[in-house]
Amino acid sequence: MVIKTRLTKRAIVQKFAEGVIRGDRVVLSRAITLIESSRTNDRSIAEDLIEKLLPHTGKSVRIGVTGAPGAGKSTFIEVFGKYITSVHKKLAVLAIDPSSQKTKGSILGDKTRMEELSRDPRAFIRPTPTGDSLGGVAHATRETMLLCEAAGYDVVLIETVGVGQSEVAVRGMVDFFLLLMLAGAGDELQGIKKGIMEMADGIAITKADGENVKKATQAQADFQHALHWLQPAESGWAPKVLTLSALSHTGIMEIWKMIEEYEQCVRSSGSFDRQRRHQKIAWFHESFDALIKKKVLSKSKSTLATFEKKVLANLLSPDKAAKQLMKKLMD
Amino acid sequence: MVIKTRLTKRAIVQKFAEGVIRGDRVVLSRAITLIESSRTNDRSIAEDLIEKLLPHTGKSVRIGVTGAPGAGKSTFIEVFGKYITSVHKKLAVLAIDPSSQKTKGSILGDKTRMEELSRDPRAFIRPTPTGDSLGGVAHATRETMLLCEAAGYDVVLIETVGVGQSEVAVRGMVDFFLLLMLAGAGDELQGIKKGIMEMADGIAITKADGENVKKATQAQADFQHALHWLQPAESGWAPKVLTLSALSHTGIMEIWKMIEEYEQCVRSSGSFDRQRRHQKIAWFHESFDALIKKKVLSKSKSTLATFEKKVLANLLSPDKAAKQLMKKLMD
Repeated sequence: MVIKTRLTKRAIVQKFAEGVIRGDRVVLSRAITLIESSRTNDRSIAEDLIEKLLPHTGKSVRIGVTGAPGAGKSTFIEVFGKYITSVHKKLAVLAIDPSSQKTKGSILGDKTRMEELSRDPRAFIRPTPTGDSLGGVAHATRETMLLCEAAGYDVVLIETVGVGQSEVAVRGMVDFFLLLMLAGAGDELQGIKKGIMEMADGIAITKADGENVKKATQAQADFQHALHWLQPAESGWAPKVLTLSALSHTGIMEIWKMIEEYEQCVRSSGSFDRQRRHQKIAWFHESFDALIKKKVLSKSKSTLATFEKKVLANLLSPDKAAKQLMKKLMD
Repeated sequence: MVIKTRLTKRAIVQKFAEGVIRGDRVVLSRAITLIESSRTNDRSIAEDLIEKLLPHTGKSVRIGVTGAPGAGKSTFIEVFGKYITSVHKKLAVLAIDPSSQKTKGSILGDKTRMEELSRDPRAFIRPTPTGDSLGGVAHATRETMLLCEAAGYDVVLIETVGVGQSEVAVRGMVDFFLLLMLAGAGDELQGIKKGIMEMADGIAITKADGENVKKATQAQADFQHALHWLQPAESGWAPKVLTLSALSHTGIMEIWKMIEEYEQCVRSSGSFDRQRRHQKIAWFHESFDALIKKKVLSKSKSTLATFEKKVLANLLSPDKAAKQLMKKLMD
C-alpha cells in the first residue's frame, strides 16, 4: 500500500482509525491488509491502530462456524448471512484456514461462493489471510475481528474448516461456536476431529430437506443424546441441536434465535463477560509465549530442537533441559 | 532426612540410585520424599538422581484411573491391584490430588483404604504428595513414577479424583486412561467434568452387581453410543466400555485384558511410542514455561497482574502488553 512519506506514523494511525470508525469499507480493507502484513513498519502501525481502536471494540456478537467439507458451510453462511442482514444488522464474515494456501485458493476467496451475500451492502466478506502458521493466521483474524467491530459490524462470523487445530483457535476468539453436521454421513465422511463436538454451543444438522428430513431428525436425537453425556458447561447453557435446510430456507431463523437465547443466558449468568476476559488474557499469554519462542529461536535455530533430541534420547531430563535452555536465553 | 555431610552430592546420588535400582522400598520411599521436597539442596540432588535413573525408566505400563467420588475408585484399585499382583506383576499406586490437602487427608493416606493391597509385598502405595499447586504435585507424581519404574515396578497406577484439572495432568503422563462411572447416577452425582470422557481409553461401569446389573448394562450401551460420536483417536484404538463389580469380583480381569489389548494395538500402530515421546517433549516445554513464569514473577510480583489488568481494561492491547513484559524480563 502507498503511504505518503510526509505523514508521521501517528497521523497515519489517526487517519486509519477515523476511516474505520466511520465504517469506510475501503479504509477497513486497507487496514486489514496492513494487519496481515509481516513488514516491521506495517506491524508497528497496525499495533498502534489496534490499540487506538480498542475502546471501540467488543460490541459485536462473535460467532464461530465449523463443519467438515461437504456439510454445506458456505451455503449456510450465504443464507444465514442474508437473514442477519435482513433484520438490519451489519455482518462481517471472516475465515481462518491456514491450509487453504496449500490447496490453492482461500475458502472464502472463491468468487463463486456467497455470491448474493458478497453484494449485500450490510455484509463485509474478507477472504482468509494467507500465512504459513496457524498462529499467524489466527492472530490476523483476531485483529481483523476487532477492526470490524470498530467499523460498527454487529455480528462477526468466523468460518473454519473443522478438520484441524484451527477450531481451537476460533473457539478462543468467539462467543458462540456452531458446528454443522451432515445427517447420515459416516464418521469418516463427517471428518470431525475428536474434541470438536465438545466445543460446540450449538449443532446444526444441515441439508434437512426432501428425503433427508427423516435422517436429519434421527441425527438430531442422536447428537442431543451424545451431548447429554458431554455435560453442560459452567455457563449454564446446555448446547442445542437443530436441523436446517439452506435449500428450502427452513431452520435458519431458529439458528439466530438460538444464538440470541444463548447470549441472554450467558450474559445473565455472567459467563459471557467471563469468557471474553478469559480470551483476552489468553491472547496476552499466547502473544508473550510467541515472543519467548522467537527469542529462543533467535539465539540459535537449533537450540530448541537440540534440547528436544537430548530429552527424547534420555540424555537429559526435561527439567534439566528447561534449565539449560533458560540459561541460554538469559545470556 | 539425614544426609551425612561428609558424603559428596555425587556419592549421595549414587547411593540413592543403587538402592532404587535394587528395588529397596526404604530407599525408594526416601527418594520420593527427596523429590517432594522444595528445599534447593534436595531439589538439586533429586534432579541428578532422576537424570541418573532415566535409562532405567519407561518399562512399565502407566495407567491413569479417574472417576467421581462415590464411583468406587479405591475399592476398584484394591481389587484390581490384587489381580495385577496375583499374575506376578509388581504394582505401584500413586495419586494426584492437590485438593486433598484442603480437605484434610490425602485420598490414599487414609489407612482404612486398600488395606489388603497395602500389605501386598508386590505392591507399593504412595499417598498424594502435599503441595499447593497442581503443577507442583503433578511434577512430583511424574518423577515418582520414574523412580518406581527404575525400582522395577511393572505397572504404575495413578489415581485422580475426576472433578478438576488434575485429569489433564494425569492424561499427560500415562499410556492408558481409565474412567470409572456409576450406573444410573444422575449427571450431578457423576460430577464428571466436560472433556474428561473424551480423554478415556476405556470406561468401566462400577458396582454392576445385584439389582444394579441391568442399569449397568444399559449405561454400558449408552456410553458406547456416546463414545461412538466422540470418534476413535488416531491411535487406531476405539475406546471400550466394560462393566465390573469389585464386590463380586467380576469384570476385573477383563479390565486388565482390555489394557493389554490396547497396548498391543498402539504398540503395533506406533502410537504408543509417539504418545510417550510427545509427553516427554510436553514435559520439557511445561518445565521451561514454569521457569519463565518464575523469572517474570521474580522481576516484580505485580508485573504479570498489572499487565493483565491493563489488557482487561483495554488500556493496552494483548500484543503490546506481551512486548512490554518481554522487555522487562530481558532487562
